[in-house]
This record gives sequence, structure tokens and C-alpha cells, in this order.
Amino acid sequence: MVKKNKARCTGCPISYALDTFGDRWSLLIVRDILIKGYQTYSEFQLSDEKIATNILRDRLRELEEFGIITKSKDPTNGRRVLYKLTPKGADIAPLIIEMVRWSAKYDPDTLAKESTLKKIENDKEGFINDLKARVKQDK
Amino acid sequence: MVKKNKARCTGCPISYALDTFGDRWSLLIVRDILIKGYQTYSEFQLSDEKIATNILRDRLRELEEFGIITKSKDPTNGRRVLYKLTPKGADIAPLIIEMVRWSAKYDPDTLAKESTLKKIENDKEGFINDLKARVKQDK
Repeated sequence: MVKKNKARCTGCPISYALDTFGDRWSLLIVRDILIKGYQTYSEFQLSDEKIATNILRDRLRELEEFGIITKSKDPTNGRRVLYKLTPKGADIAPLIIEMVRWSAKYDPDTLAKESTLKKIENDKEGFINDLKARVKQDK
Repeated sequence: MVKKNKARCTGCPISYALDTFGDRWSLLIVRDILIKGYQTYSEFQLSDEKIATNILRDRLRELEEFGIITKSKDPTNGRRVLYKLTPKGADIAPLIIEMVRWSAKYDPDTLAKESTLKKIENDKEGFINDLKARVKQDK
């Protein structure tokens, strides 16, 4: 994966972001941790998008290689692995929030909650900081 | 493509955004129009990422189907086709700007200009509005 990234690297910041986490499944995993508070492999499998196990395994490995997530043993259950966002990963939050805003505007079938959207419009920075703080507390 | 999108649709706003323009190449095309001011097929081929012609053709078609771009004849050259962002497409700007900010922070080899980053940090809304206004003027 690092090799693939190196080959593509053009110095363009948009290209860099897309090479690092711009895969659909990767961003859904970041969403699962950031918004849904998921931390385990089996939780990721619960998501409505039904990620295949081989893709999930592959994307978790890539996200770890790119420093977006870390893997650790659950202190309450040594056989369970917890996936958490690094500060670099949590900093994807503003981008995810812009996705939410865009979709809420253009998707007639959106399930984005009115109350959440209001919170974002009233205080976007505060909303993002709350999300990031929650991820941090989980550590 | 519409069928594929329908099949994936979960109502989640992040999933909707990813299904609509979340492909790496699609977002690079949006970047080319929004940031670089490209409008033609041959301009898109100039980009450093070297998009293959079949992928370019395919993604332009998809972006048009999803209402992100429109296709029109160049009034100064009837044989040339111009691709422009719709308002829905231009509204992807905030998301692209968050990608720029994230990469500028984490990519040691970023080519993002210091002056551009300063403008974004000082007045993000203004920067985004300028980008969108420029795209609009091109019409």
C-alpha cells in the first residue's frame, strides 16, 4: 500500500488525502469509529453497508499503516482488539461533517437528523470538537 | 451506476456522498474543475495523476448522471465540449478544502502553497465562496 501511495504521489493535497483514506470503505470505517463509536471488528461488520470480511481486514490494515487508526488489546478482554482513531484520523472529522452537510442538502432520502444538522449549522467547530473529544475519551 | 447507488443506499449521509462522488478519480475531476479551472477532456488528461481515458470517460458520465457536472458545447468552438460544475457539484468545495487542510497538516511533501493555506485559515467561508463564484462566472 505504501508503494502504491508513493507511486501515485503528486504533492497535491487532494490527491494525498484520497490516497490515504479516499477509498469508500476506509471512510466508512472512519465514520463508524467517529460517529457510531464502534471499536471492534464485529461492530464494523454490523454496519448497513455490509462490508465484506476480506475488504474490512484489508482496509483496517491500510488505515493502520497510514497512521489513521491504532490497534490495541481491550483491557477488559485480552482476546478482543480495539480500533481507535489517532489524532491524524480524528482530524478527518471536518471532512466527514462537510459530507453530512452536502448529503443532507441533496439527498431526498437522507436519514441525517434535523437536530444534528441544526447543531452543525449553529456551531460547526463546536460539533467537530465534541466528536473529537469523545473519540479521545474512549482511549 | 444509478442501480449500483440504489443498491448501496442506506440513507446515511456519508454513504450517500461516497456513492455519488466518493471515487478517487471523480473527486480529482471535481478538483480539476474547481481549483485548476479545467473544462475540457484534454485538460483533464493533463493532470499529474494521469487518468486513463476509459476511466476519465466513465467518471465524466457518472458525474453527469449524478448531477455534479454538466456538458455543453463550447460557444467559441462547436466541436469542443466543456464540462462545468452544477451548483450541487460546486457545493463539494467545502469538503475539498477540508482535504487540503488535512493534507497540509500531515503530508511532509505537500505542495499546498503557504499563501493559500493562510487565506483558508483566515477566512475559510470567503475562500470557498470565491472558488464557487469563479466556477459560476465561467458559465
